[in-house]
Order: sequence, then C-alpha cells, then structure tokens
Amino acid sequence: MPSKPLILISNDDGITAPGIATLVRVMRRIGEVVVVAPNSPQSGMGHAITIGHPLRLDASTIFEGIEAYECSGTPADCVKLAKHHVLKDRQPDLVVSGINHGSNSSVNVLYSGTMSAAIEAAIEGLPAIGFSLCDYGHSADFSHTEEWVEHVTRQALEHGIPAGTALNVNIPKKSDTPILGARLCRQARAKWQEEFDLRHDPHQRPYYWLIGSFVNLDEGDETDEWALAHNFVSIVPCQFDLTARAGLTQMRQGWEMQLPGQPAPTSIPAAHPVESEDYGVVNP
Amino acid sequence: MPSKPLILISNDDGITAPGIATLVRVMRRIGEVVVVAPNSPQSGMGHAITIGHPLRLDASTIFEGIEAYECSGTPADCVKLAKHHVLKDRQPDLVVSGINHGSNSSVNVLYSGTMSAAIEAAIEGLPAIGFSLCDYGHSADFSHTEEWVEHVTRQALEHGIPAGTALNVNIPKKSDTPILGARLCRQARAKWQEEFDLRHDPHQRPYYWLIGSFVNLDEGDETDEWALAHNFVSIVPCQFDLTARAGLTQMRQGWEMQLPGQPAPTSIPAAHPVESEDYGVVNP
Repeated sequence: MPSKPLILISNDDGITAPGIATLVRVMRRIGEVVVVAPNSPQSGMGHAITIGHPLRLDASTIFEGIEAYECSGTPADCVKLAKHHVLKDRQPDLVVSGINHGSNSSVNVLYSGTMSAAIEAAIEGLPAIGFSLCDYGHSADFSHTEEWVEHVTRQALEHGIPAGTALNVNIPKKSDTPILGARLCRQARAKWQEEFDLRHDPHQRPYYWLIGSFVNLDEGDETDEWALAHNFVSIVPCQFDLTARAGLTQMRQGWEMQLPGQPAPTSIPAAHPVESEDYGVVNP
Repeated sequence: MPSKPLILISNDDGITAPGIATLVRVMRRIGEVVVVAPNSPQSGMGHAITIGHPLRLDASTIFEGIEAYECSGTPADCVKLAKHHVLKDRQPDLVVSGINHGSNSSVNVLYSGTMSAAIEAAIEGLPAIGFSLCDYGHSADFSHTEEWVEHVTRQALEHGIPAGTALNVNIPKKSDTPILGARLCRQARAKWQEEFDLRHDPHQRPYYWLIGSFVNLDEGDETDEWALAHNFVSIVPCQFDLTARAGLTQMRQGWEMQLPGQPAPTSIPAAHPVESEDYGVVNP
C-alpha cells in the first residue's frame, strides 16, 4: 500500500448529499482524495452512460481543501471522466462510491448508480468499493458507518480486491444494537414485487407511479440479506462478467446451432468449454 | 411449448426503431405478440429504472393488428409495466428485446438498455432474450437477422433458457459472407478506451463529448467477440447474480471481519462457503 494512497470518490445521490460528505471525511484520514460526482441525484440510473449529449464538468469548492468536480452525467460517466480527463496520468489506488442513501443489497445492485461507479472502475482495472446505508429515511444517520467504511477501506488497501470485481458493501441502519462485524456474502436471490399506482393528471391523462415491495426469496445464511438482517455489514464481491457458466454447460445439451438444413462449418474449431472463473488480485 | 406462445417485446431504441419492427415481424410468425416499448431512444441507459417521477403509458397503433404501448420510461420500466399492469394475469412465455441497433457483446451488456429489459424479465422469472445487430451504421440492414432471430427464439421455446439467466444474442453485420452458425459463448474481457473531446459552447463554457474505442483484451475462441469476428451469431447466457464466487473464496484469506479490538460474535454461525451455481431451466 502506498503511504498516501490516491482515492477517487463518486456517488449517485449527487455531490451535495450527506453520504458523500461522510465518505470524504473518512477517506481524507486515509489518503489523498479527489471527488468527481454528479451535480444532481442519479438514483436508479443503473449502469447508464451519456452518449447522446455532451457532459459538463465544473470545479467545486464544497469540500474544503479537497480537489472536487461536479458533473452533469451519470455515476459511470463521472468515473470515466475522472480517470481519463481529471486524473489523466495519476492512477487512483482505490475508487470508492457512496455512501448511498438506501440499500443496494441483493438485486438492487443492478439498479444502483452507486455500484455502477464502482463496477465501471473495476472494468478499468481499478480496485473499487461501493458503500450503502440501509436507511431510506429522510434524515438517515450516517455517523455509525464511519468506522466500518474506514475498516473495509483499510482492509481493501492492505489485501487488495479480487481482479475483475468491485465490492458491494451495505451497512445496517443505525439502531441500539451494535453492528456485530462484517461478513463476506453472496448476493441473495430476491425481487421487487412491483405495483403501479394509477393516477390522473389535471388534464385527466393517466400516469403511473412505481411502488414495490422487496421480497427475499433466499434463506441462505451466506447471503447479504441474511447478514444485514442479523446486524452485520455485508460485503459481496461483484463481477462484471455476467456469463452464467452453469447455464452455458446446460445449453450445450440440445440447442441446435445451425439453421434447419444448414451444414455445420468444418474448418472452424469447436469452442473450448467454459467452466472456471479466473481471478487474480488487484493490489494497490 | 404452448401452441401459440405469448411473446412480450420491448427494446431500447424506441418503438419507432427499425429493429423492433423486424422483431415484431418475426415474432408474429411464432406467437401472440404484445409490445411495450419506450416512446424515445434509451440507448446507454443500462439497468436504469424510473423512481423520481411518474410514467406515461399510451396505446400505439404502430404495428397493425398488434397490441402495443409506448412508455415514457426505460426498457426495465417497460418490462415492469408490461408484467404488472398491461399483462396482469397473462404470463408471457417469452420476453424478447431489440433488435438493438449496435453491438451489445462483451462489456457492452452492462451499458445496454436492450439487455436490461431481458435481465429485468429474468429477475421476474421469465425466459428472455436480447437481440442486437453489430452494425452502428445509420441505414443498418436488419434483413439477414430474421432467420437467426426466429431460429434462436424457436430453440428457446423448445429447450427453455437456464433459470436466472437472459440470453445476450449478437448478430454479425450483413456482409457477402454468410453467417456460419450460432455459437454458445462466454462474455469476452474487453473495455472501452475512453477519450473525451473538449469543446467550448458559444458562451465559452467547456463541455465534453465521450468518444472511445472498443478494445478486446481476450484471445479465447469461446468468447462472443471471437464468434462475431468469425461470422457466427454469439449467444451468451447472462446471470443477474453478480457474486464473484472465486473472489469470495479468495477474500476469505486474510480479510479481517471485526473492527480492531472487537470480539467476533459467538452465537452466530459462520456463513456456509459459497462455491457452486445452482440453475434449473425455465421452460415455457
């Protein structure tokens, strides 16, 4: 670990959100900090990027003594702009995103702008962590997250993060019960049971609000949902290779790869079977 | 397979795009079709959902004889609205998305609205396929895709799709060389080498256009990039469980799960190791 690691910070709630202020406060104790964050909330943006229109990037003085920029784009845009334009030849030792105002456990990772910033960094070959607080309340208290964010960050700097992954770290809501520890987990199988609230505007045209309830379909004690329900910080290493290897093997039985009547190509080798994952460690 | 399967169609290029017209033409030969698609292009939206404002949904007569709706939201919104509001008690036998105007191979799957519709369907437990044409040209020719889209769809209806996955199907650009066949693949390791084009607006404020070139870092002949480069249709089953299982195992060495000085909880069982994937098949 470098004595003074360079840490890039982003988020999806926007540069004025309380969660990123907490993250900046912790990270400046650990290293040199640069912030590139959206200039407005981007929750639910998933892994969106901005293609069809240009991006704005403006210096910000919001964090005293910290080099910071606000960007008109998405969290993934922020990481791209940070790496290729703001930092240029400076390679960050770690990218952290958050602290998200609300849970990104289980399938929420897919909708999460916070995690898209971390996963974008992982694609770039950078060690990355997304932090989220499992509290949707308007005046969510982030104070208890600081020691855990610092602990996980120092562990990541010391041990590295598996190559090709970004850590999805969720922290229980503040309560009278102390947090019992952190726990390495897999993503729980869960879904949102969606409903749509149909309303009518003043011109009598209908519109719909998405309302849903989260349903955990997974009873495993090795899941992030289990950990959070038992007052642990959950840590899930997330990969951006979506290939379902077991699914591939399954599909090799029965699926016909040629059109009806089309001969199979003879001069082309059959693809090697794909079975194992291959990870190294990204060590800062 | 039901004699007349119910097929839900969405996309990310919008309901007026040529790709979805091709998809509708093929699917009406196979089953009963319902379309719910964005009312404007949503490319690069990743797995975005609309939380902060309401959605509009309007009936469309764009496809003669087909029940169709245009939606103000993202591709993932369209699938949620289709399942929970438009179709309600009718369960689709298959969800297809596309045909995207441009490649969604390799890491592009993460930025892809087309695939987010398919993955959203997979989360809902529905068999789903995203189709893309590897041609970014303004007047891309979709005609050669029809027989392959039909073939893959009929295979999916006959054999099912591995549970918890959506198929990412990419089709080579039309050329004088015929397509050699389809190929089951893993997602290639690749990245976008990004650059930002700095310009100044008429008021002398700077802005940035994202420009990048795709770099394949993977020489495997079992990858989607290899298949497409050799004139095969690539098929990658994609999972929405992002857990990096090899990464989890790796992190169990060395990472400290308690704060400095904090005792480990005694009454809580250690999590089971997570090593294998567990798939069934979603059979229509």
